[in-house]
Amino acid sequence: MIDSKTKFGHFDNDNYEYVITDPFTPSPWINYLGNDGFHGLISNTAGGYTFFRDPKFRRLTRYRYNNVPVDTGGRYFYISDGDDAWSLAGRPMDTVLDKYECRHGMGYSRFLSRKNDVEAKATCFVPLNTTAEVYMVSLENTGAKSKQLSMFSFLEWCLWNAEDDATNFQRNLSTGEVEISESTLFHKTEFRERRNHYAFYHVNHELSGFDTCRDSFLGPYRGMHNPLVVETGKSNNSHAHGFSPIASHHLKVDLAPGEKTSFVFVMGYCELANDEKWARPGVINKKPAEALIHRFDTTEKAQAALDDLHRYWQDLLGKCVVKTPDSAFDTSINIWNQYQNMVTFNLSRSASFYESGIGRGMGFRDSNQDTIGFTHMVPNKVRERILDLSATQKPDGSAFHQYQPLTKKGNANIGGNFNDDPMWLVLSTCNYIKETGDYAILDELVPFNNDETDSGTHFEHLHRAFNHVVNNLGPHGLPLIGRADWNDCLNLNCFSTDPNESFQTTQRGASDIAESLMIAGQFVLYGEEFAVLCDKTGHSELALTCRAHTDKMREAINTHGWDGEWFLRAYDARGNKVGSNDNQEGKIFIESQGFCVMAGVGTDNGRAKKAMDSVAEHLVTDYGIMLQQPAFSGYDKYLGEISSYPPGYKENAGIFCHNNPWIIISEAMLHNPDRSLAYFSKLCPTYLQDKQALRRSEPYVYSQMVAGADSAVPGQAKNSWLTGTASWSYYAAVQYILGIRPDYDGLRISPCVPAEWQEINVKRTFRGARYDIDIVNDVSDASVGDDHTGECNTSNTSDSTKPCVTASRISIVVDGNALIGNLIPFAEFSGDHKVVVTLTK
Amino acid sequence: MIDSKTKFGHFDNDNYEYVITDPFTPSPWINYLGNDGFHGLISNTAGGYTFFRDPKFRRLTRYRYNNVPVDTGGRYFYISDGDDAWSLAGRPMDTVLDKYECRHGMGYSRFLSRKNDVEAKATCFVPLNTTAEVYMVSLENTGAKSKQLSMFSFLEWCLWNAEDDATNFQRNLSTGEVEISESTLFHKTEFRERRNHYAFYHVNHELSGFDTCRDSFLGPYRGMHNPLVVETGKSNNSHAHGFSPIASHHLKVDLAPGEKTSFVFVMGYCELANDEKWARPGVINKKPAEALIHRFDTTEKAQAALDDLHRYWQDLLGKCVVKTPDSAFDTSINIWNQYQNMVTFNLSRSASFYESGIGRGMGFRDSNQDTIGFTHMVPNKVRERILDLSATQKPDGSAFHQYQPLTKKGNANIGGNFNDDPMWLVLSTCNYIKETGDYAILDELVPFNNDETDSGTHFEHLHRAFNHVVNNLGPHGLPLIGRADWNDCLNLNCFSTDPNESFQTTQRGASDIAESLMIAGQFVLYGEEFAVLCDKTGHSELALTCRAHTDKMREAINTHGWDGEWFLRAYDARGNKVGSNDNQEGKIFIESQGFCVMAGVGTDNGRAKKAMDSVAEHLVTDYGIMLQQPAFSGYDKYLGEISSYPPGYKENAGIFCHNNPWIIISEAMLHNPDRSLAYFSKLCPTYLQDKQALRRSEPYVYSQMVAGADSAVPGQAKNSWLTGTASWSYYAAVQYILGIRPDYDGLRISPCVPAEWQEINVKRTFRGARYDIDIVNDVSDASVGDDHTGECNTSNTSDSTKPCVTASRISIVVDGNALIGNLIPFAEFSGDHKVVVTLTK
Repeated sequence: MIDSKTKFGHFDNDNYEYVITDPFTPSPWINYLGNDGFHGLISNTAGGYTFFRDPKFRRLTRYRYNNVPVDTGGRYFYISDGDDAWSLAGRPMDTVLDKYECRHGMGYSRFLSRKNDVEAKATCFVPLNTTAEVYMVSLENTGAKSKQLSMFSFLEWCLWNAEDDATNFQRNLSTGEVEISESTLFHKTEFRERRNHYAFYHVNHELSGFDTCRDSFLGPYRGMHNPLVVETGKSNNSHAHGFSPIASHHLKVDLAPGEKTSFVFVMGYCELANDEKWARPGVINKKPAEALIHRFDTTEKAQAALDDLHRYWQDLLGKCVVKTPDSAFDTSINIWNQYQNMVTFNLSRSASFYESGIGRGMGFRDSNQDTIGFTHMVPNKVRERILDLSATQKPDGSAFHQYQPLTKKGNANIGGNFNDDPMWLVLSTCNYIKETGDYAILDELVPFNNDETDSGTHFEHLHRAFNHVVNNLGPHGLPLIGRADWNDCLNLNCFSTDPNESFQTTQRGASDIAESLMIAGQFVLYGEEFAVLCDKTGHSELALTCRAHTDKMREAINTHGWDGEWFLRAYDARGNKVGSNDNQEGKIFIESQGFCVMAGVGTDNGRAKKAMDSVAEHLVTDYGIMLQQPAFSGYDKYLGEISSYPPGYKENAGIFCHNNPWIIISEAMLHNPDRSLAYFSKLCPTYLQDKQALRRSEPYVYSQMVAGADSAVPGQAKNSWLTGTASWSYYAAVQYILGIRPDYDGLRISPCVPAEWQEINVKRTFRGARYDIDIVNDVSDASVGDDHTGECNTSNTSDSTKPCVTASRISIVVDGNALIGNLIPFAEFSGDHKVVVTLTK
Repeated sequence: MIDSKTKFGHFDNDNYEYVITDPFTPSPWINYLGNDGFHGLISNTAGGYTFFRDPKFRRLTRYRYNNVPVDTGGRYFYISDGDDAWSLAGRPMDTVLDKYECRHGMGYSRFLSRKNDVEAKATCFVPLNTTAEVYMVSLENTGAKSKQLSMFSFLEWCLWNAEDDATNFQRNLSTGEVEISESTLFHKTEFRERRNHYAFYHVNHELSGFDTCRDSFLGPYRGMHNPLVVETGKSNNSHAHGFSPIASHHLKVDLAPGEKTSFVFVMGYCELANDEKWARPGVINKKPAEALIHRFDTTEKAQAALDDLHRYWQDLLGKCVVKTPDSAFDTSINIWNQYQNMVTFNLSRSASFYESGIGRGMGFRDSNQDTIGFTHMVPNKVRERILDLSATQKPDGSAFHQYQPLTKKGNANIGGNFNDDPMWLVLSTCNYIKETGDYAILDELVPFNNDETDSGTHFEHLHRAFNHVVNNLGPHGLPLIGRADWNDCLNLNCFSTDPNESFQTTQRGASDIAESLMIAGQFVLYGEEFAVLCDKTGHSELALTCRAHTDKMREAINTHGWDGEWFLRAYDARGNKVGSNDNQEGKIFIESQGFCVMAGVGTDNGRAKKAMDSVAEHLVTDYGIMLQQPAFSGYDKYLGEISSYPPGYKENAGIFCHNNPWIIISEAMLHNPDRSLAYFSKLCPTYLQDKQALRRSEPYVYSQMVAGADSAVPGQAKNSWLTGTASWSYYAAVQYILGIRPDYDGLRISPCVPAEWQEINVKRTFRGARYDIDIVNDVSDASVGDDHTGECNTSNTSDSTKPCVTASRISIVVDGNALIGNLIPFAEFSGDHKVVVTLTK
């Protein structure tokens, strides 16, 4: 039914907004509010929930995942106008509106609905440095007759611990507590107990009534689509004791023709010192809430906070602005991809409309990778994150797979022994230093496993990460894979036959000889990065040692990792090949192709090019590049979870988007701009606006997975928002397609763009300097370096990317002065500069 | 609103049914289907879900707890008649019906709805020894015009693991798989993977259509209250790939005036051997499903299975049938209490409308106690359960707190160190032997901690349970409480200040000197039971040793456990008294009063009577007996979870019903029949039919908790069905009020009934013998024994209950022959007998 429409919205780039024009999108299309630990998920009909720091342990409002009706539960405003009533954001009431619009912007969402000459608007946002959502709501009588309206707000409190809230009813239904104080409805469940925090919902207006009991507001066996109080037009002034506390204000609004009125709602969270919890016995100390409310108690104050938020995002997005002939590219790179990078940085894989916020903490590998698209925006936060991650590293160099955001401690329950984990710390750190020049991060003393008595410099942590690979090599001299690498699904050491076992935690590995070609490539790539870093920091002897190890690994890959037309994926626990033409299924995998080529393995002997051609031949579809082919038709306990999915979904030959940028980068490094951009445009959502109904997921952000050729609906996208695809795609597009690449000593310029892109402008702020870069493309094939991979400009030794980039076809002029090589040295060109890059044959 | 009604249903005792006449009961009123590992929970509007053995790991259908609208999701039949459509069971569509009725019976539920001259009926049940729910559905045209109807079935599959199903959406939304074969819709998610089981939904009729995709059936953003397919009148024949698989049949039904037609739906579960899973690649082996379906493919066959189920329950309930002047008493004892005992025996505390089925397994103490109201019904199952429990006992005599029903292994994750746990094994075992005479259970070899290499006789397990108390005494010679006793809330050894910590698993106990008076009483009571058992089995020396320990414990209670007007509750980890008049809050607790008096402590010195008077003075309310008084106004980390609840709820001065029977028994043992029955009638739901709206919970079963005097709504009942209250209340009523008490060598008769109860009949099957017992009450105070507690009839030494019962005021005539004493010895009177008991002054 819904598929008869192809489009449900469009971009408004002037306002950095996505405009949704139909409340019934193929799936809920969401946005995120807040970015300093106080977060809200908000759909295009205001569904979703809010949490403080940890979506499991500090959830403020209740949300039911996989609900019926879909996406029911959120920040609702019911407007009652005589016999008619509707929901301001288009749902959950199903009243047909005269007009509906949702605008998802940078850290806010706006809603507009019109019915019977009443126009209602709401702007929802989390002000900067604030533990509250603010809703600016207005009602306007656009008709010729006066209106007597009632507006009812509604939200449902979560009893803090989201897991208990959804499971432990024999307790929960007896614990709910509220307080009501004029226009503020307080939620204080367990505040009398061990909690030192409460929530509240306030409106800056006198109330005509309120409700705090869900059953009283909704009425028996009614839903959010037809609350009894909205029907009767009168709140019950209910006081919740146990069961399900809610907050609902009742405002009576009389509007003359043309009249408009505005309200500010504040849904906030306060923590109190233990000795300041109570105003008097049984009555909570409301002062912190009052102070918070005071900051937003007029429309003017709220608007000022919203303006601040706008400015904050303008500044952030201003740090790198591109203009190419391709508006889809620009829309993604300038706005939505960076916005998504912030969200993945903030939330890792914890809370989205697919991640329920109770299963996963901050992933070690995820969070390291998430920095690479975000470091240029807020480097200080990245510094803190890298050191937090480093502090969870174990003394042997291995890593916990995840840590809890509340405690920042490694979570042993989630499983571990993923041998690729530690090397991602090298990626994030080198990327951070290149962006900032902040070598001091390497000297920070960081504990191992959060044990302050066992600390080392962050540099030592990187060294142990490197050594963890060296110390865990298998029979072919390739890295042992551990449980799995880079994602959790090729489980070569668990052999589970019990459906109640988690692939991530069950311990069954008998032998441990399974080796990973993906980690082999990763080790060469980031091992050599580490060697460069050693050189830069005076550890030249260590650099030599490291390069000896990476050289040996290159050799091992060439000797034992090449299958004839592509790189093998792995050796399993029995020593059998995985991802070989000898296999019946799973003959070719994407990961090892991407990582070996990015590492420069096979660039000297044609294997890199051959591997990429094989990817093109076997894995590329209209909707992106599949993870492997042919799909596994049945479960194979020696491969684990990857074979548990139906063919075409997830890791079993789905388009698992995270790895697609590795191929995009590899093709760019091999100077194939057309392939590189073609792959990018299959993947990047801004290019796919005519496929909204097919894809279902938000058309403005990446999804984790797109169904592959073997699936029932190829091209259908799932698990939007929280995916490493975001940062990797941004990194691929800016650093490898546009070739604007921070390096230790300056900004390297190395574009790989198609012939059609004749003029490009990039405005890039880099360590405080501002570079206004025009790229003029005077060649038909504008890949810099082409096949002259041997001609390195050795004056720029710090470029650790392989193959090295020649400057023979690129001329760079800075402020009118020609530059030698393709690195704009920061030491020479801090401050603001005009850069003209000309690409010639 | 809903409170304006006082009654929503009534008993139909002739049919063993409760009749609900309004779909909008104060909360969903549910029933259980199945009792041999295949179970369904079904509400009065057919809501609920189904599982095989383990409600966490093998859940067949999806159910959303604490849903909005309440209780949405179940076995639904939508009937479409021109422009009208309604739900057969009254919901989830909110069409106003001409008539609605739900009849919850023994293992089945019937629904009737009438609208526009169409009468629809459904009977839902699980046939004996069957892994399927069967729904017999009929439609009748009661009008004068012909009808063209459509009926749509609907249920939503759970993807087996109920916890993952509700949390792991990044995986789940890609795994769903179905097969469709004529009129059978198969759910085979993960069957291709590690599962060897599938489910199916069949109807014995050709289909006009079907749906297996939820979104397709419901339509975008619609709910179960308004499915699009029901509105359009036409199924979409959708095939689910991922997202949420459902099963919906479409049947077109043309009915002439007066015509009636019937269908049989079967929703079943099959397990297959690994080498028989597939018919051919990708196609499941449907033979087991076909065989199951074949058993119920006509209305006649289904009716025969239902008749078998009726007979099964008639037999079970026929084992003990009472007739007193008090119909509320009889209704509970003869029907609903026994029925609830079966449910608690089957499910422990795992799955109800308050227990979400994913948090708890089978409780060690719960399951032991649950046997005492159930052993007379199916003793073989109790034998197996006792040995399963025994096998989880640890070598030191202590117990895991819970075990998983699928594996029968102790669950270390749930927490342990509740020092009352092991002694409950003595209660269940002695009760079992008294009922059956099966001493052989004591000789069974049973592993400790499920380790077959470390086994001992079950008798040895009991001995270690006894010794575990002896080996864990505190500074006053009283038993250490461990984490808590008898329930989980008085946590004297954890001191938690972090709201994210579970009181059951956190390890914080610094000192371990906290002692429990409840365990002290329990030890005397069941320790002396164990001593009697030793005597009966030739371990007379051990019996002496045991009695020396219990005598010492009596002394310790009298020396250190008496507070002046009642028994103390405990000493905390600092050695301070808990449950003392010296305390500001929590001065008097119920548990130690009940257990010390049941153990006969203080019957010789007036303290027992004094304790009971104190209970009457301080704890008794109109709605039952509160757990303690005064309620704790704030959280006290030295007391733990008990102080975490708002006053009047749960353990914080709520009426935590489980312990009320201990007082009922104590009063009976002290020969206070009026108090005993008065307490019983406050507690027992059959007495409370005029309080349905206040209580909210099912008026035919016990709830775990009734809100106490300090609460906002005293008398409101929560957590119905799965509570130890069921077995304890039955045990108290039959064995102590009626005084029909199995003993090792026969049936003991020792009534404690009020003067008004002049004639009572009890028909009791006991070890195959059938006793038809008339009790003629010729005294104003009909408590046998009265204050002649010293006059034991020593000819019946096996009566281990204290105080011992005199026979001086009771005369028993068996088949016309006067009996000496109050024990009908089984050796002398097996077979069928008429017993006349006369109580005289």
